[in-house]
Amino acid sequence: MVVKTLNVREDILGANDLIAENLRTQFDRANVFVINIMSSPGAGKTSVILKIIEHFADKLKIGVIEGDIASDVDARKVEAANVDVVQINTDGACHLDANMILSACRSLGIDDKRLVIIENVGNLVCPAEFKLGENLKVMILSIPEGHDKPLKYPLMFTESDALVLNKIDLLPHTDFDMEQLRSTVTAMNPKIRIFPLSAKTGEGVAAFTGWLQGAVEGR
Amino acid sequence: MVVKTLNVREDILGANDLIAENLRTQFDRANVFVINIMSSPGAGKTSVILKIIEHFADKLKIGVIEGDIASDVDARKVEAANVDVVQINTDGACHLDANMILSACRSLGIDDKRLVIIENVGNLVCPAEFKLGENLKVMILSIPEGHDKPLKYPLMFTESDALVLNKIDLLPHTDFDMEQLRSTVTAMNPKIRIFPLSAKTGEGVAAFTGWLQGAVEGR
Repeated sequence: MVVKTLNVREDILGANDLIAENLRTQFDRANVFVINIMSSPGAGKTSVILKIIEHFADKLKIGVIEGDIASDVDARKVEAANVDVVQINTDGACHLDANMILSACRSLGIDDKRLVIIENVGNLVCPAEFKLGENLKVMILSIPEGHDKPLKYPLMFTESDALVLNKIDLLPHTDFDMEQLRSTVTAMNPKIRIFPLSAKTGEGVAAFTGWLQGAVEGR
Repeated sequence: MVVKTLNVREDILGANDLIAENLRTQFDRANVFVINIMSSPGAGKTSVILKIIEHFADKLKIGVIEGDIASDVDARKVEAANVDVVQINTDGACHLDANMILSACRSLGIDDKRLVIIENVGNLVCPAEFKLGENLKVMILSIPEGHDKPLKYPLMFTESDALVLNKIDLLPHTDFDMEQLRSTVTAMNPKIRIFPLSAKTGEGVAAFTGWLQGAVEGR
């Protein structure tokens, strides 16, 4: 008798990779640059996205895909910035997958866009595993979360192209160790770019959006 | 031809519920009170657990089960408080399940304990779905995460017995709206107890640990 063990997780990720590759081909053909933004709940994904929109609004046509378990709180904030938005409600799922993005793109329309920003579900774990056909993975860690997070949620830090350290206006009120954070993260992912900033005060935002602009133009 | 659709998710949760019931029977038989602590990464689970240990240390024998994707950073902090600790590394899984707790309890030994504290993986999504045989579910939201989180991660707020609002020392530096938070949460879960506190300064901690003591004594 033969016992077969199914690794359902590998199957799921394999299927997702296939759809993500297909998505990436579609994005390249349409000349759309795609950024996948990931973080814990409340680290400031929407606030950082609003800063990106502010920077690119008069340069490029932008679309935003908002991922949430429930609600359209963030989509309404982004819509107010006068860009096209599609809201995905995952109904319990803790991450976006490529198939959801495929549907969202049909609804959003990508042919007239040059930049699509995806706001993932607030979660430092699963979103790191699911490719969405993006050009860049940007993760946000906010200062109050603490400098020990890379050791505890390693995949997100090793998978990301850039790490935004948001809420640096709160640095004086916490015991966040910036040097410790930098050395842990760069040991795990030597290529990662780190941008300390405050979406609230605007400090440090220009360095980040400037780097993004270089990436979009150099595609 | 018959097409069968398998709802794998329901199967997983059903199996977990069975193991959780069995766990609960074991806990009751051993006269152990079990608290399951859940939050986003960096909301302060370990700091709040250290405050609970401080309160109960001379009253009850305590055991702690630490859940993390990777690392034993938190287990070492808790061990320093002179209690028995078991570290679970989930190796990628974004929540603890009842089967992991079953193994951890064998290693921890529960017969000499009166209180077991479980620190779940930092995630506002999946941990809410997996029962661990606990007597109380306590969730932590930290002030910098913002007052809009209940709408975006509803299950965690509806499933929890108590909501600890940690880092109230940062209130003056944020636009967190306490009344808005209270009204949203109590509309979703009228029975939930809300405890604003700062594990850092100690403000508000006594109200929370006093309530916990009442729950443990009244079991």
